[in-house]
Parts: sequence; C-alpha cells; structure tokens
Amino acid sequence: MSKQILVLPGDGIGPEIVAEAVKVLEVANDKYQLGFELSYDELGGAAVDKYGVPLADETLERARAADAILLGAVGGPKWDTIDPAIRPERGLLKIRSQLGLFGNLRPALLYPQLAAASSLKPEIVAGLDILIVRELTGGIYFGQPRESKVLENGERMAYDTLPYSESEIRRIAKVGFDMAMVRGKKLCSVDKANVLASSQLWRAVVEEVAKDYPEVELSHMYVDNAAMQLVRAPKQFDVMVTDNMFGDILSDEASMLTGSIGMLPSASLDANNKGMYEPCHGSAPDIAGKGIANPLATILSVSMMLRYSFAQVEAANAIEQAVSVVLDQGLRTGDIWSEGCQKVGTREMGDAVVAAL
Amino acid sequence: MSKQILVLPGDGIGPEIVAEAVKVLEVANDKYQLGFELSYDELGGAAVDKYGVPLADETLERARAADAILLGAVGGPKWDTIDPAIRPERGLLKIRSQLGLFGNLRPALLYPQLAAASSLKPEIVAGLDILIVRELTGGIYFGQPRESKVLENGERMAYDTLPYSESEIRRIAKVGFDMAMVRGKKLCSVDKANVLASSQLWRAVVEEVAKDYPEVELSHMYVDNAAMQLVRAPKQFDVMVTDNMFGDILSDEASMLTGSIGMLPSASLDANNKGMYEPCHGSAPDIAGKGIANPLATILSVSMMLRYSFAQVEAANAIEQAVSVVLDQGLRTGDIWSEGCQKVGTREMGDAVVAAL
Ligand SMILES: CC(C)[C@H](C(=O)O)[C@@H](O)C(=O)O
Ligand SMILES: CC(C)[C@H](C(=O)O)[C@@H](O)C(=O)O
Repeated sequence: MSKQILVLPGDGIGPEIVAEAVKVLEVANDKYQLGFELSYDELGGAAVDKYGVPLADETLERARAADAILLGAVGGPKWDTIDPAIRPERGLLKIRSQLGLFGNLRPALLYPQLAAASSLKPEIVAGLDILIVRELTGGIYFGQPRESKVLENGERMAYDTLPYSESEIRRIAKVGFDMAMVRGKKLCSVDKANVLASSQLWRAVVEEVAKDYPEVELSHMYVDNAAMQLVRAPKQFDVMVTDNMFGDILSDEASMLTGSIGMLPSASLDANNKGMYEPCHGSAPDIAGKGIANPLATILSVSMMLRYSFAQVEAANAIEQAVSVVLDQGLRTGDIWSEGCQKVGTREMGDAVVAAL
Repeated sequence: MSKQILVLPGDGIGPEIVAEAVKVLEVANDKYQLGFELSYDELGGAAVDKYGVPLADETLERARAADAILLGAVGGPKWDTIDPAIRPERGLLKIRSQLGLFGNLRPALLYPQLAAASSLKPEIVAGLDILIVRELTGGIYFGQPRESKVLENGERMAYDTLPYSESEIRRIAKVGFDMAMVRGKKLCSVDKANVLASSQLWRAVVEEVAKDYPEVELSHMYVDNAAMQLVRAPKQFDVMVTDNMFGDILSDEASMLTGSIGMLPSASLDANNKGMYEPCHGSAPDIAGKGIANPLATILSVSMMLRYSFAQVEAANAIEQAVSVVLDQGLRTGDIWSEGCQKVGTREMGDAVVAAL
C-alpha cells in the first residue's frame, strides 16, 4: 500500500533545503521500497501569496489525508507587516493544532565532528545528547480568552490565557516517559509550579503518570533553574518534558548549546505517530536563494519521519549514517564550516548525502 | 535625617550571607556618615515559622516604612510540603507586589578574575556586561483569574492569566531606556509578539516610549531567539527589558553565563527608587549553616542599594572596589574556587571585604 507524504517547502531557504531532503527521501524510497508518494503544497508566506492565507483549507485537508508531512520553514520580512491574523506563523500554529500534533520532539545533539562550533567549552558539551519533548498544541499558544482592549480609563491592555487540562498533560508526559524508556531512563519535567496554577497541575499529573514507569528516574525543575542548568551542566539531562512556551524557549537554548542548529531536526506527532517533520532552524531570509543553506537538519528530519511515523528503523539509521559520513569527509556548509574543512553549497551537500546513501 | 534599612535574612544561607553584608553596610555607614538605622524581621520560611505566614502584616508595614530593604534568600525543603498558599515564595511575591517593586535590575557581569569559571569559551564571555531589566509586579505571576478546577467530565484543569496594561509596560520600558542611557545606549526588548496578545501590546508600547529616547538603539527579539543568542553571542547585548516570566528565565540563564552566580546582586525598585536588594542566587539549603556560602552577591546588593536608593555613588563604588580587591588577593569561597586560589568561608570573605574597605 502506498504512503502519502505531503511536502511543504515554505519560505526563505525552505524550498532549497527541502529539495535536498526530497532527493534523500526518494533514494530511501527506492532502496528500501517504502512505497511513498509525494505531493506538494504551500504553508506560511508562500501560502499567503498563493491562497491569501498562511494555511488554506485545501492544504489542511491534504495534510489530514497524508501519512506524514515534510516542512521547510516559514516566515520572512516580506510578511512582517501584514495583518497579524494571516502572518506566516499563524499557518504553522494552525496546522499543529488542527492535526493534533501535540508531541514535539527536539533533539539537541552534539556532532563530534562539529564539537568546535559550540560556544561552550568542549568538556561541558562533548557527547551532549538531550531530547526535549515539548507540548505543542496547548497552553498559552492557544488558550482562550485572549484579547486586546481599551479600558474605561482609556488605557490599552491585553491578556493571554495559559490553560492545561489533565488529559493534555497526561499524553505529553507519556511521550516523555516513553522516550526516556528507549534512551537513558531519566526524565526531567520542567514547570514553574512555585508560581503558576497550571504548573501545579502539570507536576501532579506527571507524578501520576510516573507510576506506570517505575524504571524511569523522574525529576522536576523550575524553568528558570532549567535555563541555568542547560548552560552550567547540560549533560545532566537525558529527556526533558515541558509545556508549549517553556519548550519553545528551552529547546532553542538547548539546540544552540550544540553550536550547530543547522543540524537539528524535529518531529511533531499526533496520538497515532502521524507527524510533521521540520528542521529546528528558521527560514533564514538573509541567505535565501543563495544556495548556501545547510540542508542537513531537513535531511535528518526525513530520518526522524522514517523512524517515528513509519518504523523504518533501518532506512532511518542509514540516513543518519550517511550524514555522519559526509561530515567525516570534511564537507561543510558555511554555518558549520571551520578551518581545514571543505565549504560546499546546499546542493553539493545534498548530493553528497545521496552518494553516501 | 536617619534612613531606615529593613534587613530580612530569610532562609537557608540567607542569615549567613546577610550577616556579612550587614558588616559591610555598617562600615560604609560609619565611613560615609550615611545615617542608616537597621532593623530586622523575617520573610519566607522563617516568617512561616515565626508568624504562620511567609509575610506578616507587621513585616509588610515595616517594609513600607523603610527606605530600603536588604533580603537574603527564601525557601527550602522544610516548607516544600506546606499549604501552597503560605509557601516561602508567596512572601517574596507579596512583598514585591505590595511595595510596587516593578523594576527588577539583574546584572550579568563577568568578573575578569573569575573568567575561568564560565562554562562558555573565554572569547565568548570575556568582558560580558549585560543588564536585564525584568518587570516584577505584573504579567502571569499575578494575573487574575487563575484557577484549578474539575470540569464537568470529571477532568481536572488549571489556568493562569498573562495580562499587561499600557502603563505597566510604559514604566518598565522607561527603566530599560534610562538604564541604556547610562550604559551602552542599546536596548533589546524581548517578547513573543508572534504568538501572544500581551506581547503585541508590549512591543507597541516599547516603540512609543522609544520616541523619547532617540539616542538609544532599540531592537526587538522573540524570547526563544533571545535564549539562543545569550548562548551564542551574549556580548551583543547591553540592556534587555522583558516581562516577569521571560525575565525570570532569561536573567537566570544570563547570570549562569558568567559562571559565578554567587557574585550577582539584584535590585527591585518602585517608582521612587525605593528598593529591595538581594542576591540573584537562592537559599541553597544544601550548604546552609556550614559557613561556606559566598556572601559577595549580597555584599554587592548593598552596593546597588547605595547607588540606586540613596545615590551614594562614592560609597557604592568603594564596596565594588573592595570586592575586586579581595578577588585580586585570590580569596575564593567554594563556589568560585579554582586551582591556585585560597579557599575561604563566608565570614572570612566578609571580613576581607571589610578590611579592603
Ligand atoms: C514561529 C513560532 C510561532 C514557533 C513557535 O514559537 O512555536 C517557532 O518558534 C518554533 O519553535 O517552532
Ligand atoms: C522564587 C521565585 C518565585 C522567584 C521568581 O520566579 O520570581 C525567583 O525565581 C526569582 O527569580 O526571584
């Protein structure tokens, strides 16, 4: 039976990096007889230009029907001044929410070949391998009511709401524990339970879920302390699970510890492991169209897709292995380049991974 | 005319480090004829033990009457399981809110003598000198409504509210711009305006305030990017201004970049520069009572007090200078100790600063 993959190149460098990832996906498709059929559509600014909205209804229907989605990146200065309601990010938030992609996996992994690129001392980050599990469809990102208004005294005010229900917390906690079980069996749940009502419930529910995972060593940490500990001693962490906003902040901080954010993929999964896969980095409008962007995070997102949505472990491993081979060969795009390595463009890098595969 | 200083030693290492800071304060008081009168009370766990609440009404009245407050730190495992409504942190939040201490100044400064203690590479942090201005009495920390409840389907849910009014944003933005004016004239305002209604208002109001500060170079950054940039290239920042929750996270991250959080003071100011001064670090219950805690952050908090609440610039500089001298002498408490330095306890460190003064 064929599997449908919807490809959403997006904005900025999106189309360039996705093109390379698609090459890799097609080679894997042939080699491992995965039966994938690819179709294309737009998300973000490109969708605003084509459909007038950052996520068209027909695109959403295609995404629903697909077995997995490969996304480039969205956003750019071109759409910075349009009506906030149709900004590119809105399309991203809507597809996450409408498809119920609540489980966001963001690895922060230091590639030994790129150790020098980190701004942290080598001994602090050598061997770093953290997985951040971020809740992606709840919390303050989507909470209602939210409003901007003028008070009776003429002053403007605005507010957002940060809600979490037991079931939302339970399902993301389970993802955290499940990931810990196949990794180092350590889970750190991050909240601000000394201040927030939603965090107090978060902590209580995580404790309940923990009963089903006696093998996992669970700890709790306040978000301010977590932001410190990631800088001080990041290797203390195995899996971290946290809410939408804290996960946004901490996963970006953690990815930057590796010094090679151009290498980091991500997965956003629903309850049945249907997923959307995208690089952790953004659309980098400043280098778009120049053919110099690093496609490896997007290529590794394909590997995550094979692993999580299709349980094609062999093919997933092969792609990761191929990426490691090109790094060993000394090939580097500008963002990860260092003295003594060979600087290559987006396409050369993609071709090298295909060759290694 | 005499000036009243209320001293709140708090919990854990609080009493030990405050004792040393008070020595320094008294020497400065004599030497510069500041006319300070000190009185003592309790906050946090110590207040729970004495009054049954983490901030007693009489303590609050004393704090209102005082010209400045010196605080140690609050919290500890002893009070972790009590009724959340009277946890030590509640006392801290209440005194901030009741005294209108909305302007929280948190410097992240790398002491050249301690450069090796940072987990970041020396070239990334050498000369680091950031000031984070955190809004301290609004936002999600105090927003109403907030509630934990059981839904009709039997599920628990909880929510918090993140509100900001124009006047709240305006006054903290002014603090940010004022600080930038006496420093490097660069202000970075941090928000999440691509997602939050409150952040959109934040950004708009900061832009309005900017009109009164044409000399200050203003930029805006999303909080996730700010968390990354602090790791990647922290020296790009001069002053950062942000809301209560983002400020909590980013100031802790920034302070840890210096590797010497035991060195960092903070000030929380009201509209008339009346302030509460405390170290950035916590109550460190694990080392409480051992006489090994680093008193320098609290001593430097006294320096901030003299500078911001009493405009005693000479005395403030003298204390900073004295701290620098003891570091030059090679004296170190355990948290900042490195090979070749002399390890000293809390009291010895305090005495050395007094001697240098
Ligand atoms: C673009 C933005 C809305 C988004 C988010 O905050 O979730 C991005 O920062 C991310 O982390 O994927
Ligand atoms: C103890 C806690 C409530 C407090 C806060 O979050 O404000 C602390 O982390 C701080 O930053 O002063």
